[in-house]
Amino acid sequence: MGDELILLGYDISMFAMRVSIALDEKGIEYEYREESLDNKSPLLLEMNPVHKKVPVLIHNGKPVSESLIILEYIDEVWNDKPPLLPSDPYQRAQARFWADLIDKKIYINGGRVVWFSKGEEQEAGKKELMDGLKLLEAELGEKVYFGGDKFGFLDVALIPFYNCFDTFERCGKLRIEEHCPKLIAWAKRCMEKESVSKSFAMAHPSKIDEYVLMTRKKYGIE
Amino acid sequence: MGDELILLGYDISMFAMRVSIALDEKGIEYEYREESLDNKSPLLLEMNPVHKKVPVLIHNGKPVSESLIILEYIDEVWNDKPPLLPSDPYQRAQARFWADLIDKKIYINGGRVVWFSKGEEQEAGKKELMDGLKLLEAELGEKVYFGGDKFGFLDVALIPFYNCFDTFERCGKLRIEEHCPKLIAWAKRCMEKESVSKSFAMAHPSKIDEYVLMTRKKYGIE
Repeated sequence: MGDELILLGYDISMFAMRVSIALDEKGIEYEYREESLDNKSPLLLEMNPVHKKVPVLIHNGKPVSESLIILEYIDEVWNDKPPLLPSDPYQRAQARFWADLIDKKIYINGGRVVWFSKGEEQEAGKKELMDGLKLLEAELGEKVYFGGDKFGFLDVALIPFYNCFDTFERCGKLRIEEHCPKLIAWAKRCMEKESVSKSFAMAHPSKIDEYVLMTRKKYGIE
Repeated sequence: MGDELILLGYDISMFAMRVSIALDEKGIEYEYREESLDNKSPLLLEMNPVHKKVPVLIHNGKPVSESLIILEYIDEVWNDKPPLLPSDPYQRAQARFWADLIDKKIYINGGRVVWFSKGEEQEAGKKELMDGLKLLEAELGEKVYFGGDKFGFLDVALIPFYNCFDTFERCGKLRIEEHCPKLIAWAKRCMEKESVSKSFAMAHPSKIDEYVLMTRKKYGIE
């Protein structure tokens, strides 16, 4: 008997995209259920009562939350498939370090602040975001993927944010490619992968625009 | 030839305490080097150029940063010692989930806000902190340790914060034990372990008081 695997996501959630990309990359079958930000399903509230957020991966009835934790879970359960994380403990620690930095600098203190604030606060967010991107540009260096020749954990963790680059640039009056050409070339390479392009097909940038604009209006920024 | 292992810490850092407790718990020898918050050593700046923060574990010259990532690293490298994380992938995901919640609710959005803000902002921090502690109280339930009968990953991740409970209570006018009696009983059990009591001996609560008071004055709260 097969595993029952359900992913609760939201089309433009970068965090849910991480999980769908990882599952598709490993060739694991799952059922995707779209949540609504405004009207969370009883199943989501039951499966993630603490944070009430997507993504949640429900494996045979048991929920796992928080995208990076779900990636590790997928790697550990489906360990007969090519791993996302490297096998060497030091390389694993490095991949986790940079993935954690994405959450902190590219999203929480960076991109989200660029989207949803103005003035001095937004300037600090712009700095944080660009610092993070430049650090990742340097970490990538001349490699094909962050995982070396293999698309791995850190690639999966970062690529969904490429979908936000346009709105980061527009809201923050930034020019990412000018400072991070290697990162943009890497993102375009990633987009050639079916797991990535499938996930991006659901999350058209115009939907991100719409969400950001709506939220900025709600916060009185526009 | 043995490993060269250096831990850069700061005596009242809850995050550095996690690492020293984990190393002592596993019986791994290491050299501890005390950092100064005001005057960071060139070694710290070289080893953690991104965040410039303790703890950093330097293993044969190579640095690992971020306390929870260091705990995973220790578990993976010294895998001949009793593990901190459970072996079952689902249990591992749960331990990681709760450890992440500690960082978010007990520290970043909770305790730190209780310490360093006032008014409405502090009220929100108090709620976040108490919500987090009550969730952990429920997760602990009737178990001896979060890891069951064994002191494990989540125990190591949480116990250093027990050192802050007094100042959380004082700054926020909170009564933690009233709402979380099992958590306090658990903390007292943990304190009987040599790895924990050794770490707490360095970080006397009066030093936390001093740091919090000094920082509150700097922020103009007192």
